Amino acid sequence: VVLFRKMVVAGVGLLGGSLAWGARERGLVEEVVGYGRSAESLRIAKRKGLIDAGFMRPGDFPPDTDFLVLATPVLGMAPLARQFAPRIGPRCIVSDVGSVKGAVVRAVEKALPPGVAFVGAHPIAGSEKSGPGAAAPDLFRERRCILTPTAKTERGALRRVACFWSALGAKVEVMDPDLHDEVLAVVSHLPHVAAYALVRMLERARADALDPADYCGGGFKDTTRIAASRAEIWRDICLANRRALVRALDDYIRYLARVRRWIREGRGAALEREFSRAAERRRELEGAR
Amino acid sequence: VVLFRKMVVAGVGLLGGSLAWGARERGLVEEVVGYGRSAESLRIAKRKGLIDAGFMRPGDFPPDTDFLVLATPVLGMAPLARQFAPRIGPRCIVSDVGSVKGAVVRAVEKALPPGVAFVGAHPIAGSEKSGPGAAAPDLFRERRCILTPTAKTERGALRRVACFWSALGAKVEVMDPDLHDEVLAVVSHLPHVAAYALVRMLERARADALDPADYCGGGFKDTTRIAASRAEIWRDICLANRRALVRALDDYIRYLARVRRWIREGRGAALEREFSRAAERRRELEGAR
Repeated sequence: VVLFRKMVVAGVGLLGGSLAWGARERGLVEEVVGYGRSAESLRIAKRKGLIDAGFMRPGDFPPDTDFLVLATPVLGMAPLARQFAPRIGPRCIVSDVGSVKGAVVRAVEKALPPGVAFVGAHPIAGSEKSGPGAAAPDLFRERRCILTPTAKTERGALRRVACFWSALGAKVEVMDPDLHDEVLAVVSHLPHVAAYALVRMLERARADALDPADYCGGGFKDTTRIAASRAEIWRDICLANRRALVRALDDYIRYLARVRRWIREGRGAALEREFSRAAERRRELEGAR
Repeated sequence: VVLFRKMVVAGVGLLGGSLAWGARERGLVEEVVGYGRSAESLRIAKRKGLIDAGFMRPGDFPPDTDFLVLATPVLGMAPLARQFAPRIGPRCIVSDVGSVKGAVVRAVEKALPPGVAFVGAHPIAGSEKSGPGAAAPDLFRERRCILTPTAKTERGALRRVACFWSALGAKVEVMDPDLHDEVLAVVSHLPHVAAYALVRMLERARADALDPADYCGGGFKDTTRIAASRAEIWRDICLANRRALVRALDDYIRYLARVRRWIREGRGAALEREFSRAAERRRELEGAR
């Protein structure tokens, strides 16, 4: 069933590209137009059949768009919405795919013309890959998609966006934007910072003729896989969610300092107890969906 | 070619079991005897064909053993060597598979009867799985195996142990025990502590009716996969390598505190620069072996 006539996807990277492709393939939209800063990305997106057409100047935003999805790095979303604003029609629904919601949702709401409905969305379906070349039409299948309506969010728009994500195969749920950010700080943003930092430690451990990277086993590779993620995206996420992320980092640093003390003091029982609890919890995750 | 007549593998877990199996399958040893504290593990090891026979009392160590491999958690190795010592013959070669070398090698050397040759070894081939049920005869194929001889190490024994690991398919190299520990602290021990700690953060972020674990995507799962590792093994590794690990933890904590400050102060350029460097380095690792 056709949910929208003309969808604009701003940013045709991994998420935007997959969204465009999935929507086209399932016939959820009649036409998909991509916006991007790079001609190369738009070209790849068009050649792969993710989009029908593309534009690079915000002033070329098609005024008959009835669904706009922001899929750029999060700090770029509100400025871009502001640039599109003069050409966004009153019946257009706006959504996004950002990994941070609180500050981003507030900023985008402010940037849009009064009366235009905005529904914040975060499909939990990233990967360390990026760009339209990595897009897949089934990226969101069986993945959670968290919608974060505010007091301002129009209920009809919320339902339509929920319907759109369900049709892409996602498991849709609704959450408060700030609670979303607290949870994601712990399950996603902190692990990214931790992984980037672990990779940087390789530099520090470089000895004369020996490169520690040569001794990385599967454990190191798994633990740092997400450190291959695009820096620009994660810079924005860290800054946009700084309040919750700084708190999560504080907890993490404090906890690591405690473990360090136990190691230094030879407190084997404490170490074993903590590692056991973590191991048990981690094994549970494996069984879960 | 038969390298040893009777090999005793002390600890028939993932590493010991795989070692036994690989050696038997390739005909490198005539007989494999397993030592273990648990009758259940020995039973599984025997049923899977990893070992020919097993024993549970150190006093039953077969005196005609010509190759003993210690494959218990690292802090258990020297005490066990001491218990076996009265029955270890002068021509027996002793080795191990421990993830820590400096302190462990020194302690085992001291525990063995004078004249018995010891060759420290660390095959970099672990996983979060454990027990003889997870053993595989090809676990060491194409993996590095680091031998860490000391001034005391008999050259003939070093050659035979190197030959044994090569025959199992490992890429053998020689390294100073303390240098080994510094490198492994960064590429393996620190990541394990970091992963255990990330999983423990889930507990702290638990809100009312919401379990953060439900929102863990592939990124969290990869980053913490090794946190499912057996606590006892990692307790021992942390304690045995405490000097290098505490130093690595200090570096890591200091670096995280710096990233935290950049986030709090909104220093996007610094974040992007650091994340970029890490991402580039991490992508290089993917190409490497």
